[in-house]
Amino acid sequence: MPAPTEQLDAVLAHVDANLDQSLERLFALIRIPSVSTDPAYADDCRRAADWLAGTLAAIGFEASARPTGGHPMVVGHAPAKPGPHVLFYGHYDVQPVDPLPLWNSDPFEPTLVPQDNGDIHIVARGASDDKGQLLTFVEACRAWHAVAGALPVQVSMLFEGEEESGSASLGPFLDEAGAELKADVMLVCDTDMWDDKTPAITTMLRGIVQEEVTVRCASRDLHSGMFGNAARNPLQVLSEAIATLRAPDGSVTLDRFYDGVKPLPADVAERWKRLPFDEEGFLKDIGLSIPAGEAGYSVLEQVWARPSCEINGLWGGYTGDGFKTVIPAEAHAKISFRLVAGQDPEKVRAAFRAHIRAHVPEDCSVDFVVHGGSSATVMPIDSPLLQKALGALSEEWDCEAAVAGTGGSIPIATVFKDRLGMDSLLVGFAKFDNRIHSPNEKYDLSSYHKGIRSWVRILAAFAAAETERA
Amino acid sequence: MPAPTEQLDAVLAHVDANLDQSLERLFALIRIPSVSTDPAYADDCRRAADWLAGTLAAIGFEASARPTGGHPMVVGHAPAKPGPHVLFYGHYDVQPVDPLPLWNSDPFEPTLVPQDNGDIHIVARGASDDKGQLLTFVEACRAWHAVAGALPVQVSMLFEGEEESGSASLGPFLDEAGAELKADVMLVCDTDMWDDKTPAITTMLRGIVQEEVTVRCASRDLHSGMFGNAARNPLQVLSEAIATLRAPDGSVTLDRFYDGVKPLPADVAERWKRLPFDEEGFLKDIGLSIPAGEAGYSVLEQVWARPSCEINGLWGGYTGDGFKTVIPAEAHAKISFRLVAGQDPEKVRAAFRAHIRAHVPEDCSVDFVVHGGSSATVMPIDSPLLQKALGALSEEWDCEAAVAGTGGSIPIATVFKDRLGMDSLLVGFAKFDNRIHSPNEKYDLSSYHKGIRSWVRILAAFAAAETERA
Repeated sequence: MPAPTEQLDAVLAHVDANLDQSLERLFALIRIPSVSTDPAYADDCRRAADWLAGTLAAIGFEASARPTGGHPMVVGHAPAKPGPHVLFYGHYDVQPVDPLPLWNSDPFEPTLVPQDNGDIHIVARGASDDKGQLLTFVEACRAWHAVAGALPVQVSMLFEGEEESGSASLGPFLDEAGAELKADVMLVCDTDMWDDKTPAITTMLRGIVQEEVTVRCASRDLHSGMFGNAARNPLQVLSEAIATLRAPDGSVTLDRFYDGVKPLPADVAERWKRLPFDEEGFLKDIGLSIPAGEAGYSVLEQVWARPSCEINGLWGGYTGDGFKTVIPAEAHAKISFRLVAGQDPEKVRAAFRAHIRAHVPEDCSVDFVVHGGSSATVMPIDSPLLQKALGALSEEWDCEAAVAGTGGSIPIATVFKDRLGMDSLLVGFAKFDNRIHSPNEKYDLSSYHKGIRSWVRILAAFAAAETERA
Repeated sequence: MPAPTEQLDAVLAHVDANLDQSLERLFALIRIPSVSTDPAYADDCRRAADWLAGTLAAIGFEASARPTGGHPMVVGHAPAKPGPHVLFYGHYDVQPVDPLPLWNSDPFEPTLVPQDNGDIHIVARGASDDKGQLLTFVEACRAWHAVAGALPVQVSMLFEGEEESGSASLGPFLDEAGAELKADVMLVCDTDMWDDKTPAITTMLRGIVQEEVTVRCASRDLHSGMFGNAARNPLQVLSEAIATLRAPDGSVTLDRFYDGVKPLPADVAERWKRLPFDEEGFLKDIGLSIPAGEAGYSVLEQVWARPSCEINGLWGGYTGDGFKTVIPAEAHAKISFRLVAGQDPEKVRAAFRAHIRAHVPEDCSVDFVVHGGSSATVMPIDSPLLQKALGALSEEWDCEAAVAGTGGSIPIATVFKDRLGMDSLLVGFAKFDNRIHSPNEKYDLSSYHKGIRSWVRILAAFAAAETERA
């Protein structure tokens, strides 16, 4: 049997020749509206899981959709093989699509939209996050299977259905299936390119704490004429509490919030300074011009290396057409904190609750609901597999691949590090302007095509690492 | 023809004997879900107007539902007569019913609910505000018409369909129909009893300014991981702006907000001090214990005589089940100010807008929508008709009727004073705990019954005033 590197060109040619069919498969998965946070879509989540299990089985995997307390987990194993064993992780669930009127097309009917610069966008919910991204890996395996009859290294896959809604079933599932999933490294594709032409491996991830808070004042909704002034207004109380979460200099005011947060290491800071990052353009692209985070930090530091506090939802009282002079009984907010290395999610959660409680009057009450949390993670950048992946990416994209941070949270990386001692290698082909979680989410057709090709090369490189070692 | 005072007992007996039919008519009107603020109920508003016009025609009025740019106005005139001419005002529209799950019964299917103390509650949206209240007057006229064949004094009626949604059609309608509606005094029934046993005439009303505000930051919804810290969050911006509207001492912080606000006149303050008002009980009834308004003012002053600022609605970002780590592009609030004598609604509106604008960062924007406004009014308490009404109420309820203030706004009183020079006499039979604008709104059956009887007596007393003069 020829060595994987010798077959590489044939596999890449197969990818190119079969791109239309690869795209049809992505469309089929996108058309399943697997919104995990909304119970109305539970059946669709199951359909997406079954679709993936079937797809893996068709390319030589032993695969199944495993029931959990929430949405199913899909697990697949290719036949055992000597050399590195990689576990690929993705998620088949997607964010809700609201506000629906802002979409230019049906969020669950993928649409190819040609751009003036020649790019083609695949527009749909999940096109990028994470259906497009995860299928780059699956399609790479399909190409190896079709051309070589086997994969260059041992591959397992895990697809989760609750990534967008707190991953409640992940812990219990790993209690059962952890040993089965243990591999040398986890591959995660939930990240971005550095820019249109430069691939990136992400080595720094923020953690997150998510909380829902309800403030209750009067025992019922009140007429603001009869009670206005005398009765405490929970919307005023909650606004006042939220207003105290950020200091005028943009820092977060929770007690001991920055305890354990270290300055960016000098070598990392130096590397980031060299990155061609356009602060002004970054903000201008979203219609803004003034960085809102801590004074004295660059925008890149603010989003990659500094913890944040964001109000993700706020509601109470009358929000329909017209006007209602009501003093509502309750006010609600969904609030999250992005964390960096050194911060303990549970300490931040406790400080947040204490802070809000301290700002609610004595005769009112406050309740909290946990919506998940995870600590930040930093990956070692000297791992041989990471170095091999960097090389493969550089070959495919014909440039030096970047080593980057990200402001987002990929809790799975923390979970697998803590539970199974596995490091994660974060490689994704999303672009900065993919509007994930927003209306008109898109994935570039080139991300999909060259993403598949990149994984084809990375798998070959991993096998070569083994060959070199042998 | 016997003098009205001689027929009084017969008319009161007719009211008592026909209470069931009076109640059936109230139920029929309540069953029409005439929510004015929601366009989905426009047809129902028209049905309610037609029902009232038909009802007035059946008791000797020349009556019609007149089209406007919004919901119809109902106008009725009884035959001309010497002596005082009164215009009775009510509104047939009601507030929305949300939150619906908190209702114990269908809001538009009136339910009689016996209480432990022997009272019977009519539970439904509009049972009190204002369908029950306005029908007390219509049913009093019906009884006079049935027994005496005519009313003791000349009566016109005006029923509006947009009182709960800003009265946008009122001005244009009065431009056309003002002369036709001009009378010696306007009777308004949108007010409360002093307590379970004591009727009241309200002589002090707060005004109102209603505004909707939208803060826009980024040009689209953003992922809080990718942009959190660097991108301004409109929910944070709006919360911070709202937090500045009240000072720690409970006062409103708008520039020159209290200009023109005078201390309560000593005689009024003295009268209010004598009123049997239980501050602690007032707050306890709604589950609170600490007055939230300006320090140094009694609860009664806070709700009747001091201006307020209330957040009536607040929304933005993800508000559904689960969690979405979004930084929304927009945040919204509905905010109102209750005004007292001396405050100019348009100056308050301008100060509010300037205040909010000053709290929004340069690269964000803010928009405002007007939702109506009116200044406060104070009625002269030495008018002969007011004195006659006080006497009639005292007879019916067998106690001294109270002269009170109210924290609510009855813009119609200001409008008729400003446009037609008419004073208003505010007499209503609602009770403090009627939950108007809230789930499970109710009207006491006794309010309805004795309300009708009270108006029967007031009309007779008005005629007697004329007889005495003659």
